[in-house]
Amino acid sequence: MDLLTTTMKKIGVLLSGCGFLDGSEIQEAVLTLLALDKAGVEAVCLAPDIMQHDVINHYTDLEMINESRNVLVESARIARGSIHNLKEINTIALDALIMPGGYGVAKNLSNYAFKETECNVNEEVAMALQLFYNRDKPLGFICISPAIAAKVLGHEHIELTIGNDPETSAHIEAMGARHIDCQVWNTVISKKGKIVSTPAYMLGPTIGEVAKGIEKLVADILALL
Amino acid sequence: MDLLTTTMKKIGVLLSGCGFLDGSEIQEAVLTLLALDKAGVEAVCLAPDIMQHDVINHYTDLEMINESRNVLVESARIARGSIHNLKEINTIALDALIMPGGYGVAKNLSNYAFKETECNVNEEVAMALQLFYNRDKPLGFICISPAIAAKVLGHEHIELTIGNDPETSAHIEAMGARHIDCQVWNTVISKKGKIVSTPAYMLGPTIGEVAKGIEKLVADILALL
Repeated sequence: MDLLTTTMKKIGVLLSGCGFLDGSEIQEAVLTLLALDKAGVEAVCLAPDIMQHDVINHYTDLEMINESRNVLVESARIARGSIHNLKEINTIALDALIMPGGYGVAKNLSNYAFKETECNVNEEVAMALQLFYNRDKPLGFICISPAIAAKVLGHEHIELTIGNDPETSAHIEAMGARHIDCQVWNTVISKKGKIVSTPAYMLGPTIGEVAKGIEKLVADILALL
Repeated sequence: MDLLTTTMKKIGVLLSGCGFLDGSEIQEAVLTLLALDKAGVEAVCLAPDIMQHDVINHYTDLEMINESRNVLVESARIARGSIHNLKEINTIALDALIMPGGYGVAKNLSNYAFKETECNVNEEVAMALQLFYNRDKPLGFICISPAIAAKVLGHEHIELTIGNDPETSAHIEAMGARHIDCQVWNTVISKKGKIVSTPAYMLGPTIGEVAKGIEKLVADILALL
């Protein structure tokens, strides 16, 4: 048997906290890890060592004014402690990178939630996306995370999903990328670059439907390798 | 078509926080929600409105001395906000109840982590388990949660899994239940009562293997309804 074909692929999963209102969408993150494992791929979780923008009580939806939490530390909950500081990404030989959704993408990894098309993206995150794009390594974007992709790589006219939300898809187009309507179980593979995206909980409604889209996204990324 | 066969089953998922070191094992909880949705069952998340025993930094494994968090509020992260106070369980017509693992079971829902066979189980949790058992409604126990089942229902000589850990399985037997060795992809259906259990991350090693056991547990519970 060829040694190359038996080497396990390694794909990064970039997290932004733990909970959809102030961090990574937990279910999307876990479904990504599940799909990677089922595909025989080693998942490598990563997150930046920065403070969260806020902490939201997920039972009441209200901000917990006196609390502050760290994105890397909270993301480690989803990863069961097995996680890297995003700073170390260049020391890990990753074949591709996937970014699950959640407000953490729009509040911690960027300020898209507040500044929309005028947003800034965390420098380590932006550099990682550019690096993977320039090296022709596949990138996967789930749920709201295509908004960041549009900000960083929109000038390359990549194609991205959000689902069918008119406001967010207009932002994506305004940042230079092309938005393509997509159903929750499906993905869009960009004609430009090796970029796959799926709407997930931008559409929902159930975890089983979201799982189908994420499983397809992982399969599409593996096919691009 | 018979109306009864088209009524969606409703199964409770009892959470204990958000993160395996101080709450629910996130991956096991999400995999349970996924398996229930794929089986066409409505999942109803529940958690007690109590403070966590501690808060553990999942990146360093160290206690965060000055932090305190609420079990219901943190569990809501996994449930995407859709969760009930465990106090309300009798107002919801549940067909069965499943308890994922994580140290939250042994530190928040009980003090098994510290007092082992002499542990106390949270009164609301104990009452829920007794009620479901007495009404012949199926109960599912994942990972370490059979330890609680043994404390509450051990006198009924129910059969439970832990995997193959000799210390924990000895505790289960000392509390009156019977421990049966079990592989991660498999379940044990107790001869006494409608009780199903699976070792999950007591064995691991991967999320894909854990998912198989949890999917089988859900299927076994549905078959017992």
